Amino acid sequence: MSEFETNFPGVRQIQSYIKDKQPVEIKLNIGEMIEGKILWQDNDCLCLMNEQQQKLLVWKQALVYIKAKG
Amino acid sequence: MSEFETNFPGVRQIQSYIKDKQPVEIKLNIGEMIEGKILWQDNDCLCLMNEQQQKLLVWKQALVYIKAKG
Amino acid sequence: MSEFETNFPGVRQIQSYIKDKQPVEIKLNIGEMIEGKILWQDNDCLCLMNEQQQKLLVWKQALVYIKAKG
Amino acid sequence: MSEFETNFPGVRQIQSYIKDKQPVEIKLNIGEMIEGKILWQDNDCLCLMNEQQQKLLVWKQALVYIKAKG
Amino acid sequence: MSEFETNFPGVRQIQSYIKDKQPVEIKLNIGEMIEGKILWQDNDCLCLMNEQQQKLLVWKQALVYIKAKG
Amino acid sequence: MSEFETNFPGVRQIQSYIKDKQPVEIKLNIGEMIEGKILWQDNDCLCLMNEQQQKLLVWKQALVYIKAKG
Repeated sequence: MSEFETNFPGVRQIQSYIKDKQPVEIKLNIGEMIEGKILWQDNDCLCLMNEQQQKLLVWKQALVYIKAKG
Repeated sequence: MSEFETNFPGVRQIQSYIKDKQPVEIKLNIGEMIEGKILWQDNDCLCLMNEQQQKLLVWKQALVYIKAKG
Repeated sequence: MSEFETNFPGVRQIQSYIKDKQPVEIKLNIGEMIEGKILWQDNDCLCLMNEQQQKLLVWKQALVYIKAKG
Repeated sequence: MSEFETNFPGVRQIQSYIKDKQPVEIKLNIGEMIEGKILWQDNDCLCLMNEQQQKLLVWKQALVYIKAKG
Repeated sequence: MSEFETNFPGVRQIQSYIKDKQPVEIKLNIGEMIEGKILWQDNDCLCLMNEQQQKLLVWKQALVYIKAKG
Repeated sequence: MSEFETNFPGVRQIQSYIKDKQPVEIKLNIGEMIEGKILWQDNDCLCLMNEQQQKLLVWKQALVYIKAKG
């Protein structure tokens, strides 16, 4: 919970999605898929801008997988 | 679990929803959406005032995402 | 897991439900709602007396939200 | 994960079910109920003897609630 | 996460299933049951050889209960 | 969360799947199965290349089991 491990490959993969403004699909633990661009992440959350230009504060605990779109 | 990390962007995003009395939609791990205004948060919980003026003590472990409404 | 953080607002909210013998509804991660009065809590559990005067030892890990009833 | 917190009320409640050979119902996170007598517990698990005299090693992470039967 | 607590009764129960090549049924958090013999365990995983002689690397986080078969 | 425990058998099993470019099936906590080859892992995630040559960043928290394919 403490420090944010920015040298983990998984964290860096997300950082590169953020930097590249890469559209992604995020599969959630409730079985739903959400789509958009990741704006930022911290230890517990990431912020997704969806196609309706709404910001979703997504909990990492709810993530199943993330996939680059298209 | 120990100290509350108020300098995390995710935590600060919620703090700004609290300060602005922003109506939000909260997606839960049971697939349901609840709506209202967040009154406060701590490490484990947040308190939501719904439209029937009922206070819900919501566990962060059950959160999928939070979205500003409207 | 270690010490019980009694100064967290969420913990104190439950303490006040206990003190006031406030009937509550508890939404669980299996989607079910249970009702009763909370008798005590610790770090991992809370004890609920339901309307059939049965004591349920409820794991906090299974909580979605708690709401005062009526 | 480290030491087993035997002075927690929740842990002691289970200890008294064990000592009294109290039949219990255990609600699981998959929505199923299992029944039997608890033989022992540790930090992560409890051991349940069901009515077919089979021993189930149950993970505490899967618990929703425990209720004395009858 | 750190050291593997081999003196926990739950861990030792699994160790005895391994030593005895005891066929077991494992109930998973997705509601499915898998069957086989446990080959080894560590802190996070156990390895199950099913009846088709396939090895499954099973995450302990997904366990509900384990039962000796037959 | 801190250091990556590369000497755990479960971690090493995945490392050998990576080294051998072994096709695997991964059962997820949402009940779905995904297939592909694992490219790398860290503490929290693994990266799966599926048959459409798409990279999935999969959270270990969502894993139920992994099985070598075919």
